[in-house]
Amino acid sequence: MKLKRSPLAPAAFPELPQIEGMVSTTHSLGMYKYERDDLMVVAFPDGANCGGVFTRSLTRSCDVDWCRQALEETGGKASSLVVNAGNSNAFTFQNGIDKNNATLDAVAKAAGKPRTECYLAATGVIGVPVAPDLIAQHIPAIWPNLTPETPWLTLASAFMTTDTFPKGAGKTIEIDGKPVSFAGIAKGSGMIAPNMATMLAYVFTDAPLTAQQCQYLTSRHADATFNCVTVDGDTSTSDTLMMFATGKAELTEEQVDANFDKISDAMHEVFLDLAQQLVRDGEGATKFIEITVEGAISDKSAKTVACSIANSPLVKTALAANDANWGRIVMAIGKALEPMNRDGLTVNIGDVRVAEGGARAASYDEEKATAAVSKPEISISADLGVGSGRATVWTCDLTHGYVEINGAYRT
Amino acid sequence: MKLKRSPLAPAAFPELPQIEGMVSTTHSLGMYKYERDDLMVVAFPDGANCGGVFTRSLTRSCDVDWCRQALEETGGKASSLVVNAGNSNAFTFQNGIDKNNATLDAVAKAAGKPRTECYLAATGVIGVPVAPDLIAQHIPAIWPNLTPETPWLTLASAFMTTDTFPKGAGKTIEIDGKPVSFAGIAKGSGMIAPNMATMLAYVFTDAPLTAQQCQYLTSRHADATFNCVTVDGDTSTSDTLMMFATGKAELTEEQVDANFDKISDAMHEVFLDLAQQLVRDGEGATKFIEITVEGAISDKSAKTVACSIANSPLVKTALAANDANWGRIVMAIGKALEPMNRDGLTVNIGDVRVAEGGARAASYDEEKATAAVSKPEISISADLGVGSGRATVWTCDLTHGYVEINGAYRT
Repeated sequence: MKLKRSPLAPAAFPELPQIEGMVSTTHSLGMYKYERDDLMVVAFPDGANCGGVFTRSLTRSCDVDWCRQALEETGGKASSLVVNAGNSNAFTFQNGIDKNNATLDAVAKAAGKPRTECYLAATGVIGVPVAPDLIAQHIPAIWPNLTPETPWLTLASAFMTTDTFPKGAGKTIEIDGKPVSFAGIAKGSGMIAPNMATMLAYVFTDAPLTAQQCQYLTSRHADATFNCVTVDGDTSTSDTLMMFATGKAELTEEQVDANFDKISDAMHEVFLDLAQQLVRDGEGATKFIEITVEGAISDKSAKTVACSIANSPLVKTALAANDANWGRIVMAIGKALEPMNRDGLTVNIGDVRVAEGGARAASYDEEKATAAVSKPEISISADLGVGSGRATVWTCDLTHGYVEINGAYRT
Repeated sequence: MKLKRSPLAPAAFPELPQIEGMVSTTHSLGMYKYERDDLMVVAFPDGANCGGVFTRSLTRSCDVDWCRQALEETGGKASSLVVNAGNSNAFTFQNGIDKNNATLDAVAKAAGKPRTECYLAATGVIGVPVAPDLIAQHIPAIWPNLTPETPWLTLASAFMTTDTFPKGAGKTIEIDGKPVSFAGIAKGSGMIAPNMATMLAYVFTDAPLTAQQCQYLTSRHADATFNCVTVDGDTSTSDTLMMFATGKAELTEEQVDANFDKISDAMHEVFLDLAQQLVRDGEGATKFIEITVEGAISDKSAKTVACSIANSPLVKTALAANDANWGRIVMAIGKALEPMNRDGLTVNIGDVRVAEGGARAASYDEEKATAAVSKPEISISADLGVGSGRATVWTCDLTHGYVEINGAYRT
């Protein structure tokens, strides 16, 4: 099925800085009926420190199991990354493990590095066995092609599935006159839910960060970015977010420590940009929706309510149809069963107050509310009136396109 | 919008027994653009005992608040029931309370009974204020029309919203040669989620049951019936399930006690029939899906996993498209985060084993699996392999029809 580029997509793929100490290439394993690369290989000849967070799914893929094991055994050292699209290698048990072992052996041989420093991920259909040497057989031919010159657009495109546009975000900051660069790429379109956002995302930096700093930054920023986007409330078996630091930027440990907040802010910016692009490419999406819940008893409670609104099919279908059926937002708030004051609840769509004091706002104006939900970018805010807990999540609408794509995905 | 009768609808509305001691009628408040009755009024001239369970939503309607209060104040006595469609009277705060007070006063006057013996419900759009005398003004004219002869089909039709067929179920059993009858009617199509199934349902019997027995039977059987169906995981603000016992059947208290299981079984049968009809009329539904999860650590855990499958948009859209994409079932099991053994998991679609031992079944046959998901009635079963907990839930597929109906509902 040919998918049209999402109407919410950025105008173009961004300019991203090169990350010194990183080489890469893409390749076609022939997983797709049509011509495309479906494999991304990244290597760090001089090594890199890394951190990662992964799906909490109990049916997670063996690739996720491997990455967790490798992170633990190496204490966060990386020399390569291999990501394929077309088959998620999830729920393939021994077959998937065999495939990964073959891949790791081939990479270790080609790179001359310990296999535990190679990180793996796969995305695509769940539960379909693959040939053990699916990737391994190509590694010897692929390795010589690794180059610092591979365009980010090419890398980001190599592991897309139902994505309608490649996703990238980056930033270069200056620390004591020295440039420090960040570049991230991601894929994800469906099976996106706020429980370790359901996607593959990789952020690379030349900052000389320790493995501990990488893990800290990845975990810390995942919460307010990738873990705050949802398309359909379905959580993938392959969620992976990793960051790699080559340490090639000319910074001392002291300079990193002294400027850690600056580095952290840059990371957060890149994470959030990528996470929001996942929603902008939500399957069938025609609306980008930001939902903020305030006045909850805790930030956690606020997020639960925000996700209840974000994942409500009735809210999402109404917004898709430009229908200001705000009562469904009230419904979604109520079903979350989090502490709230029904008779003090206020709800805004954009800058239109639709509900207050437990009823329709006195100032309610159907035309204004309809105008607010008819925009391609919609913000919804609710105040539960019981505390100071606050959370913002991002989602998209539920359209015929979603039903179409997910009925036709395999066929 | 004219809705086509669900392809999963029963061939015809069933024959239901008359319940002695109950009179009823319907009326048009003019809530709809087209000609239809939108009000059901039921009265019990000699009184009835009753019980009920209601939505747990924290944005529940004032009608639900009232029914809870009335049940408590009267200890489960009923003399009338007034249900309207076209406006849910939810999230209308004082306006809704005023409307209910006016209705209750008018009914108390017409019936010559305490207002606390009148139970109310409303279904339709949320948050739209209504005239306080919307119903009250009609009561004096309506009351003389109450008759034992009103067809159940007429009653069941008077409070439908997006329903494509009226829902009824009944049974007559014999106890010591005496007939005891049960008749139930329900509405519900969207905003159906397993948290006190989201609908209005009323079951009437002539059995001389105490209020305590009514409450016990309602609560007990709601769990395995109405609380086990889901269309979209959205929980309504107006869920109401009530049963009324007129006590006109010629049974002694001893006969009731001696045959309580028989009565309980009949109630369960009627509840389950009505609950499954809600799913058969799920908005846009083309498939009736039964999901059984076994081998969980508890029945509660099994139900959580079953609902995770039942509410997964990816599972529902695949089934809608006759796509045996069973990996999505594995995904939905994993995201539930309930104890399970990934590498021992088995999944069946109908009698086709699709997954076992943490991977695709050795016997997997795509053609057979496709045939299994191409039927209008699909059964899915999964064994988590960690205990003996078991649950069955019922749902429907997610189709263009759902998106269509819920984009157009108000407009």
